[in-house]
Amino acid sequence: MSSSDQPPPHEVTIPPLDNDARQAVRDRQLQLTKPPGSLGRLETMAGDLAAMQSTSRPTVDPAVVVTMAADHGVAAEGVSAYPQSITAAMVANLADRGAAVNALCEANEIENIVVDMGVAGDIPADVLGYRVDKGTANMVQGPAMTPQQALDAISAGQSVLADVAPEARVVGLGEMGIANTTASAAITALLTDSPVEAVTGHGTGIDVETRAQKVDVIEQAIETNNPDPSDPISVLRSVGGFEIAGLVGLTLSAASQRVPVVVDGFIAGAAALVAAELNPRVTDYLLASHDSVEPGHAAQLDALGLEPCFDYGMRLGEGTGAALAIGVYRAACTAHNEMSTFAEAGLETE
Amino acid sequence: MSSSDQPPPHEVTIPPLDNDARQAVRDRQLQLTKPPGSLGRLETMAGDLAAMQSTSRPTVDPAVVVTMAADHGVAAEGVSAYPQSITAAMVANLADRGAAVNALCEANEIENIVVDMGVAGDIPADVLGYRVDKGTANMVQGPAMTPQQALDAISAGQSVLADVAPEARVVGLGEMGIANTTASAAITALLTDSPVEAVTGHGTGIDVETRAQKVDVIEQAIETNNPDPSDPISVLRSVGGFEIAGLVGLTLSAASQRVPVVVDGFIAGAAALVAAELNPRVTDYLLASHDSVEPGHAAQLDALGLEPCFDYGMRLGEGTGAALAIGVYRAACTAHNEMSTFAEAGLETE
Repeated sequence: MSSSDQPPPHEVTIPPLDNDARQAVRDRQLQLTKPPGSLGRLETMAGDLAAMQSTSRPTVDPAVVVTMAADHGVAAEGVSAYPQSITAAMVANLADRGAAVNALCEANEIENIVVDMGVAGDIPADVLGYRVDKGTANMVQGPAMTPQQALDAISAGQSVLADVAPEARVVGLGEMGIANTTASAAITALLTDSPVEAVTGHGTGIDVETRAQKVDVIEQAIETNNPDPSDPISVLRSVGGFEIAGLVGLTLSAASQRVPVVVDGFIAGAAALVAAELNPRVTDYLLASHDSVEPGHAAQLDALGLEPCFDYGMRLGEGTGAALAIGVYRAACTAHNEMSTFAEAGLETE
Repeated sequence: MSSSDQPPPHEVTIPPLDNDARQAVRDRQLQLTKPPGSLGRLETMAGDLAAMQSTSRPTVDPAVVVTMAADHGVAAEGVSAYPQSITAAMVANLADRGAAVNALCEANEIENIVVDMGVAGDIPADVLGYRVDKGTANMVQGPAMTPQQALDAISAGQSVLADVAPEARVVGLGEMGIANTTASAAITALLTDSPVEAVTGHGTGIDVETRAQKVDVIEQAIETNNPDPSDPISVLRSVGGFEIAGLVGLTLSAASQRVPVVVDGFIAGAAALVAAELNPRVTDYLLASHDSVEPGHAAQLDALGLEPCFDYGMRLGEGTGAALAIGVYRAACTAHNEMSTFAEAGLETE
């Protein structure tokens, strides 16, 4: 891995949306063999992708979902229903194509790329190794990472598309990491100016007492580190995680290359928030997927200006919601690109 | 075409759901490598399909969307934004794979079958020819069809799967027919005991005045024919259409063969209402797709006990919503069937 040639996150250049391409989609939609506007949001989805990709014929193919994994020192505080060792075990399962996101990617013909951003245990050799450290430090006792680690993790994330998926036309954000809803709730509270209580959920399925403990842990971590909410790197390094930092870099680099980014659930949303704080233009390149069960997800979507595509009560992560949503965006593009116009079909228009 | 060997619609036998298969899905979902319940509605979707198909490993493949087309005498009353000739032209476009449903089926790897149930104009030779007549009679002046025509159309619909898609594991309902939202609003008003005003919408995009005219036409047709709302054949033949009757037969035959039926928008919903009146058990085999813009769709979904999968403001018909939804149901099945269990992944469970 070589990520030293990546621009610092504050200096990533993101091009403006191409509104001529969006208008070209609108014009073509009016020529397609259907009543004007009758495909509803599928029509605007095609326009959104066109403006991002700067083409009148947008596509999601080839599509990738990048699942970044890392461990969290704060897992020691008992904030999760699962032990930390599950992270490495699930990375092995992802590499074996046995996890939910693998199945959903298979169903929707999407490549899934698994990246070790900072897992504490042993993982299979075929997982992309961008490990910054063996898990973050426990954020209750001090910053989760050093400033350099935060920058290294972002930089690694910035290099993923160029390193392993240079042809990708859309990327979905995925993650795996025991205790990462704790880190994400802390980030979300700080960056959306929300009470910790309001953005902290049950994660993988903790009970009411454990959730109360989780709220305490997050409040304690914020008090201990006292990050500056106007400095996203300060927030990220204080209470974030390596996979979240990696997704920040991935999002920035994708947007800089006009590759639309499909946000997944709560952890991906936290990464998108950090990326948007680093460069507000990144939000132009974000696409929503689902409405997560996690209570802080709505605050994220609101801050990012995203409207979810569906609500199936999902709370799994890994990129599962993004994989499902890419199927919808593909359908929107295929309808736009493949339908006949009235002229092609020999149909009269008034 | 030979449909004389189909059972009369009142006598179609629909097997009960297999709740052991549903339970087997629930049991397996708890063994899959994810927090229990974390795939939300995708998990219950897999269970629903399993109960219908009587298997612990449900699948949507091979999947078909059947798009039935017919003309409506009531088009003469000026209830649509388009002339009647558009029906035949759009059937040709469907046969050429240029319509929206073709693109969405292509995106989701679904076979699309176009059936002429009663188009008034010339259509391509490769369209499945089950034409009952050259369009229905104008329901304002009398019944849209004779009792025998209604039974013939249903019977033809019952034979479609056996004739051209005997291997289908899921079927989506689609339709095309200028003025068929008028017929569907009349059926919906009668079968859900709703005011015509409440279930009549703007169809392909008519203006406020034309919609008011449409409401008048429907009320007049109901008054003229005075069908018995408790007799679905009476309702269907008085104010229905050949493509709607065909979809009634298709729905009954699919349910009788344990093939799940994905309802599309407002016209498919009207057919599902008629089928459910003929045999209430048919509702066990119905799956929702989208939430249509047509105001009567919600009353249909409510009567049928269906919760939509997404709301994209669609109002196109043809089976477009069903094609999109089949992609979601496929994802649900793939996750269920392909994910590793904790034991397979070597993960400990408590």
